[in-house]
Amino acid sequence: MGKVEIVLNSLPMSGGDGPNSYSKNSQLQRRSASLLKETIDKLITEKLDAKTLVSDSNTFCIADLGCATGPNTFFLVQDIIKSVENTLEPNSTKPEFLVFFNDLTNNDFNTLFTSLPQDRSYFAVGVPGSFYGCVLPQSSVHIVVSLAATHWLSSVPKEVLDKSSEAWNKGKVHYSNAAEEVVKAYEDQFGRDMEKFLEARAQEIVSGGLLVVGMCGIPQGMPFSNLADSIMYTSMADVLTQMQSQGLISEEQVDTFNIPIYSASPEEVAALVEKNGCFAVESMELMDPTTWLKRPMDVEDVRQWMVCIKATMGSLFINHFGDHLLDDIFDRLTARLVGLTDKVESSYREKVMLFFALKRK
Amino acid sequence: MGKVEIVLNSLPMSGGDGPNSYSKNSQLQRRSASLLKETIDKLITEKLDAKTLVSDSNTFCIADLGCATGPNTFFLVQDIIKSVENTLEPNSTKPEFLVFFNDLTNNDFNTLFTSLPQDRSYFAVGVPGSFYGCVLPQSSVHIVVSLAATHWLSSVPKEVLDKSSEAWNKGKVHYSNAAEEVVKAYEDQFGRDMEKFLEARAQEIVSGGLLVVGMCGIPQGMPFSNLADSIMYTSMADVLTQMQSQGLISEEQVDTFNIPIYSASPEEVAALVEKNGCFAVESMELMDPTTWLKRPMDVEDVRQWMVCIKATMGSLFINHFGDHLLDDIFDRLTARLVGLTDKVESSYREKVMLFFALKRK
Repeated sequence: MGKVEIVLNSLPMSGGDGPNSYSKNSQLQRRSASLLKETIDKLITEKLDAKTLVSDSNTFCIADLGCATGPNTFFLVQDIIKSVENTLEPNSTKPEFLVFFNDLTNNDFNTLFTSLPQDRSYFAVGVPGSFYGCVLPQSSVHIVVSLAATHWLSSVPKEVLDKSSEAWNKGKVHYSNAAEEVVKAYEDQFGRDMEKFLEARAQEIVSGGLLVVGMCGIPQGMPFSNLADSIMYTSMADVLTQMQSQGLISEEQVDTFNIPIYSASPEEVAALVEKNGCFAVESMELMDPTTWLKRPMDVEDVRQWMVCIKATMGSLFINHFGDHLLDDIFDRLTARLVGLTDKVESSYREKVMLFFALKRK
Repeated sequence: MGKVEIVLNSLPMSGGDGPNSYSKNSQLQRRSASLLKETIDKLITEKLDAKTLVSDSNTFCIADLGCATGPNTFFLVQDIIKSVENTLEPNSTKPEFLVFFNDLTNNDFNTLFTSLPQDRSYFAVGVPGSFYGCVLPQSSVHIVVSLAATHWLSSVPKEVLDKSSEAWNKGKVHYSNAAEEVVKAYEDQFGRDMEKFLEARAQEIVSGGLLVVGMCGIPQGMPFSNLADSIMYTSMADVLTQMQSQGLISEEQVDTFNIPIYSASPEEVAALVEKNGCFAVESMELMDPTTWLKRPMDVEDVRQWMVCIKATMGSLFINHFGDHLLDDIFDRLTARLVGLTDKVESSYREKVMLFFALKRK
């Protein structure tokens, strides 16, 4: 196993179950998951030979990588189990299901464990560690899913933080609208991370098993500035610059803050899968991410969007600027984006979820 | 799997790593564990056919049931892995090790995970749930250990809390020096719990695998009142009665407080193992529990003892009497026991750790 754990600059989702927590504010993720439900069910039905896979031990193993604290992961896992059971003959011995819930070591596993469904039909275990290394033994899982997690890079690309580099990302929080060198640095970082991700999964997944991933996506060749998220990242930078001018944060703090999230194109991931060589592509497509398609969008939708972003990215801001500024930052950001509702409405919001399913050769 | 999780009246060890935490105050447990090291090593060397067990998947699985938050469990697991590796031929492929760390769902797994050794040579997962039911799939583990955990009953025997019962344990906190009916109620509860424990382990452990348990023990026929712990339990009751007379706690609170810990004899456990029928007894003995044998014992030893007891039983008191009284209770208890150092010194403290090792048929 990888003894050296990759330390993410990004922090895990907000823990606990308070009003700002991930577990209370992940409706967008849940809707995406339910949209994916049918797709995943179809994959399992058509591409997975569950009967053969469980024949040895009668235990079917599922891993959710980047599960956060629930509850979306519980719905997802329950759906997968139902799909697998449906592919088995009605009179055959039912397999037992073991589910590995993985996230970074500093994820709030206590909340995850105490919110596990009481009436679950599976054994549940928690797996702490970065999925950019192996987190489970060789050939130990049959289905691995990872939703809304692999767009988080293992760290901010280091060139972006280096004042002497061409990729120094002064005054910005993301590669959106940034210098070409910044875009390249993010792209390279994603390439290295996804390579490690695929290598580790190739180790862990049994031959014939499935790897199913949903993450931020973008059509190949489209500039990131077309996307709704770009408006958000630009607004974040504007808010931080404003707060700097008011003496609330330092220039240094603004310049060194970058959000390590990357949107990949299907072509880019397909090339990495081919390079890895251990998987066959069963599906590789850009999908619509539910709520974003709402037309017309109103200010309430934008507010709700920011509540979700605060739950998922809040800890990044807390880590960098301190707990005391979180609400101020997001109040300003929300106000700014509410004023940009029309711009968000007319941004590209269709095919921005990359979904892919691979079968271990 | 057991969908209904047994709810323990007992709470888990004190979480976190503060001055009162279990992770900082479990030296007694650590010394017991190191005493056991040789015994466990010998067992693995002589009784375990590791080579055959790992031949299928090359993954060797170990579970620590009732692991608390560490660090003792990490030393124990590392020793077991070393022993297993030593039994394998030097030139054979090294197996991968997967370790299941189990404790109650409300155990502080966050602390356990963040204190996992960085340079560990095994995959670590956390398993929330009561070990009085199945917590893992069938035939999924090769060695199960449980140290200082199975003397915790799944709950206080309900008769002991029932005013109308002969076993109503008014004014006492334990079956030590209590009515015969109270002793019987604890004994029966232990019998039912150990039956469930063995049934669950028989499901989870592969044929040829080992179950290794260390817990509170007592020579058959010896009254509990001979033991050092008896002096402690009597002192606890005295302290609580005193605090009641001072109006700090109610009579009701004192009468309904019972510590669900049971000391079993080898004969008693052997009978339950035979009844279960799935295991062969490889070892069943009473051992000396390290520090207790110190002669002469001084007041500092008694104080240290109470620090450990506070870390392991503190949450029981917090749960029943409230957080604000914990220090007061333990200050009084420590003062009282320090005054009884001679009595503790002359109590029976030799063979009060029951150690048993079973091999799954």
